[in-house]
Amino acid sequence: MPELLRRYLPILQWGRTYDRQQAGSDLLAAVIVTIMLVPQSLAYALLAGLPAEMGIYASIVPILLYAVFGTSKALAVGPVAVVSLMTAAAIGKIAVPGSAEYIAAAITLAFLSGLMLMALGLLQLGFLANFLSHPVIAGFITASGIIIATSQLKHVLGVPAEGHNLYELAGSLLTHSGGLNPHTFLIGAISAGFLFWVRKGLKPLLTGWGIPARLADVMAKAGPVGAVALTILAAWWFDLGSKGVALVGDVPQGLPPLTMPVFSFDMWLALAGSAMLISVIGFVESVSVAQTLAARRRQRIDPDQELIGLGAANVGAAFSGGYPVTGGFARSVVNFDAGAATPAAGAFTAVGLAFASLTLTPLLYFLPKATLAATIIVAVLSLVDFSILKKTWIYSKADFLAVASTILITLGFGVEAGVTTGVLVSILIHLYKSSRPHMAVVGQVPGTEYYRNVLRHKVITDEHILTVRVDESLYFANARYLEDAIYDLASRRPKLKHVILMAPAINAIDMSALESLEAINERLKAGGVTFHMSEVKGPVMDRLKRTDFLDELTGKVFLSQHQAVSELAGKPRRGGAAKSKPVG
Amino acid sequence: MPELLRRYLPILQWGRTYDRQQAGSDLLAAVIVTIMLVPQSLAYALLAGLPAEMGIYASIVPILLYAVFGTSKALAVGPVAVVSLMTAAAIGKIAVPGSAEYIAAAITLAFLSGLMLMALGLLQLGFLANFLSHPVIAGFITASGIIIATSQLKHVLGVPAEGHNLYELAGSLLTHSGGLNPHTFLIGAISAGFLFWVRKGLKPLLTGWGIPARLADVMAKAGPVGAVALTILAAWWFDLGSKGVALVGDVPQGLPPLTMPVFSFDMWLALAGSAMLISVIGFVESVSVAQTLAARRRQRIDPDQELIGLGAANVGAAFSGGYPVTGGFARSVVNFDAGAATPAAGAFTAVGLAFASLTLTPLLYFLPKATLAATIIVAVLSLVDFSILKKTWIYSKADFLAVASTILITLGFGVEAGVTTGVLVSILIHLYKSSRPHMAVVGQVPGTEYYRNVLRHKVITDEHILTVRVDESLYFANARYLEDAIYDLASRRPKLKHVILMAPAINAIDMSALESLEAINERLKAGGVTFHMSEVKGPVMDRLKRTDFLDELTGKVFLSQHQAVSELAGKPRRGGAAKSKPVG
Repeated sequence: MPELLRRYLPILQWGRTYDRQQAGSDLLAAVIVTIMLVPQSLAYALLAGLPAEMGIYASIVPILLYAVFGTSKALAVGPVAVVSLMTAAAIGKIAVPGSAEYIAAAITLAFLSGLMLMALGLLQLGFLANFLSHPVIAGFITASGIIIATSQLKHVLGVPAEGHNLYELAGSLLTHSGGLNPHTFLIGAISAGFLFWVRKGLKPLLTGWGIPARLADVMAKAGPVGAVALTILAAWWFDLGSKGVALVGDVPQGLPPLTMPVFSFDMWLALAGSAMLISVIGFVESVSVAQTLAARRRQRIDPDQELIGLGAANVGAAFSGGYPVTGGFARSVVNFDAGAATPAAGAFTAVGLAFASLTLTPLLYFLPKATLAATIIVAVLSLVDFSILKKTWIYSKADFLAVASTILITLGFGVEAGVTTGVLVSILIHLYKSSRPHMAVVGQVPGTEYYRNVLRHKVITDEHILTVRVDESLYFANARYLEDAIYDLASRRPKLKHVILMAPAINAIDMSALESLEAINERLKAGGVTFHMSEVKGPVMDRLKRTDFLDELTGKVFLSQHQAVSELAGKPRRGGAAKSKPVG
Repeated sequence: MPELLRRYLPILQWGRTYDRQQAGSDLLAAVIVTIMLVPQSLAYALLAGLPAEMGIYASIVPILLYAVFGTSKALAVGPVAVVSLMTAAAIGKIAVPGSAEYIAAAITLAFLSGLMLMALGLLQLGFLANFLSHPVIAGFITASGIIIATSQLKHVLGVPAEGHNLYELAGSLLTHSGGLNPHTFLIGAISAGFLFWVRKGLKPLLTGWGIPARLADVMAKAGPVGAVALTILAAWWFDLGSKGVALVGDVPQGLPPLTMPVFSFDMWLALAGSAMLISVIGFVESVSVAQTLAARRRQRIDPDQELIGLGAANVGAAFSGGYPVTGGFARSVVNFDAGAATPAAGAFTAVGLAFASLTLTPLLYFLPKATLAATIIVAVLSLVDFSILKKTWIYSKADFLAVASTILITLGFGVEAGVTTGVLVSILIHLYKSSRPHMAVVGQVPGTEYYRNVLRHKVITDEHILTVRVDESLYFANARYLEDAIYDLASRRPKLKHVILMAPAINAIDMSALESLEAINERLKAGGVTFHMSEVKGPVMDRLKRTDFLDELTGKVFLSQHQAVSELAGKPRRGGAAKSKPVG
């Protein structure tokens, strides 16, 4: 039991040796991350179509739970851009943004996603995330970044616009562009410009002034807080609210409330697919960040336990007024760079955010939504990177196809269609490729016992014997191709008496492939041809011995290909070049 | 153009050399198959919930079109049991059996299925059928056979009962069992008993009487015709219709009518999934039969052209009052055994069935539905074979899981859920297995240049060098596992300076795996460890050269593993057993 506890509660490991020095590092990191998270959390809630405070709530309890159950020392959990967009897409299908049902759906979505992540973790099904190939994720994130940035333009322009894909969004923006609010646009444009400059230009400027690089970095990261503070002041001073600038308005002051997911079978069914997509996308992003950071200090994370950690965080979000969360890239890097030594840094961050939620929320009344939108736009545009298209085009057209279709479908039909397409296209391409394994007809290299591809080498063959080497494990996706290929080769050789399947590269044979071998055996037998195998690997042979395939086999299984040919040709052929006819 | 024509119209090849002798063989085969097909076609139409004549219609034009476009010399196309059941399941979702909409839906389903098959053929996407593994098909057909037999019990018992899965059917039968009609039951039970006996006992009896084996076989195959004729006589003589025995009733006399599919987007959308499943199942069954028969005469079939042939047959069915068709096992074997030499045998069969449709239909008025149901039950019970469960249990638990879930879901939730589950489970299992490739840490076999698994051999290792050999191509499903495994191994070796990935068994590296290698390289670098590769295959190396991976690689790519270790250990190690420490 203590063994199990230690496994599922990583806090029991690092918590026992927690010391003052670690606490100091963690505390410093927490202060910096808290400053960064306040505007980010508000902004992502806005992106999800939810009240601003839900972004803060989603960063408190989930961080605490991740600190207990997670294995990464530096991962910072909370709302992130892509998952917020996916949340909007998912709950937008079943409720109207702004309604109580919409909020309830977001909470329920976090709950379902949390349950699924925990179930995947307990069942050790983390490998499911492998369905999302790297290029598909890269394409998906780029396309999501474009959709997010476009969706936020409405807040910057001060016009209403809706849509879950680029086409709807762009159309909606154009339709309403006449109603642009100049004050909103001014706030939004200046904020965006300021944030872009902070991102690129502030750090060099500060270091130029002699400020240490590390501190300059932290100050640059605090840029969004500066933009938030300045635009709050401007909105208050110029009374921008009365001039049509949308403000965040009343934000409840206090700790996260206790909320409950909706226990409705219909709603669960409606959200299940989206919850699964969000879980997988969130997990994949999070694990990738966690691994990158762990590697820098030669630490390990445990992907299956990460599922449990993220699952607990999401269940926590559901019971504390939040919405789906995952490990964020930017905030985790800041946490790591600021020196976070243990997940306790996350716990301190949660305390910081709880303090902000208790005290700072009244100040947010005058915060223009355009400022938050600018924060999001600047953040997500750094995710947009089309280089994956060029990279895959050069490296592998199959991967290019997967990325290009993911990007196009995401932009054209939204995030859920996009990521689903990416997964399906990758799997299809993989099955297509492995359904046509490399096969070679082989012959004897004169004077040796080597057998090589007749197309590449000058080798000796025998018109009565056909040897086919397959360079891949045999399973259902390529079993029929093998059948086809062997029948095809056999039907073109009228004098054929023996077919040998040379199997040194076959690591496994599944039931489908076994049945294909049985069919090949029977069908060749019907045509008067004997079927043999050579160089079958030990584990494959062990498995074949459990069946009656070896009894039914019309021919033999030879240890070596040379032995097979020597015996079947009815004469020893060592160095027998003189007696055979070479094939060019 | 003639090249293309020859490819897509196989009739142009065999048609040119068609002679009198072939015509004689084909004609004899056609007579025998026609006799067999009349009751079978009526029965399968009943199974699909359609008017009996649609079964005959579905056997006329489709056979003619397959003769033009198909590549198998002996395949007999028409309604078959499993596809009829799937048709009932598909159109039962959108229309009430017996209604005009139901018939229109069946015709539209054939049309859609035909279009899909032709599209798959033209795009050479026949490999999609590989998604259906052999064991999944075996399980699916067994479960379908049970559902079909159960669904026909209502006709034998003379009670109403409905359902698309075993649970619904059994429940419905039990509910209505009080209303059993004794006359119907008598007809059904005697027919079934007679047919079982014909199948097993008639041929030995006839040969015992000195009748040649071949003729006895044909007479046994005509058993269903005997049952049909005798029960028609009995129904007429005893006026069973007035005693509550359901009769086939009026069947229109004449050639197949010209019908049109419904061009409704909603209906197409509703039927698209079912049409795809029916196409794939039909194609897979048909190709397997065609290949078995072709192999006996050392002939070839072309799976992509088969898609076009079956597609044309289904489109033909849609325009001539039929419903989805495919190549049937029993009738194709009879056709083959009766000596069919070319697809012209099919054309003659079509003429025979057209003649039957023109002249014999009035006789069917008195045919009890119980007889047809008995025909179906006896036919499909021969499909039921649970041995695949035992076979897979012994051979591979993964395949067993796929089969068992296919059978259970088919029985419990119907054919469409069953086959979908089978496909998904197989793909999941495959991805799961290939997501954990065999990997070994290797060391030098003392006194040699061989490097073997440290767990299996007594080899020399170096605490500064970790060599990992992966026995599988690297792609998205195993890329992250490789990362995990390497980080894990590296983190347990504090003195590590070099990691070597030994790659002689890696046939391909996709973009995801390349990015994983890049991540491994970077993360090891962050921890002060150099990353190398050894024995990379030529084609893999060519592809890597197109990227900047080799420039970024902190270490080198070595031609041989021994060269790598010699250089990295900083000393020649040939036969260097004395200087190294062996690891048990």
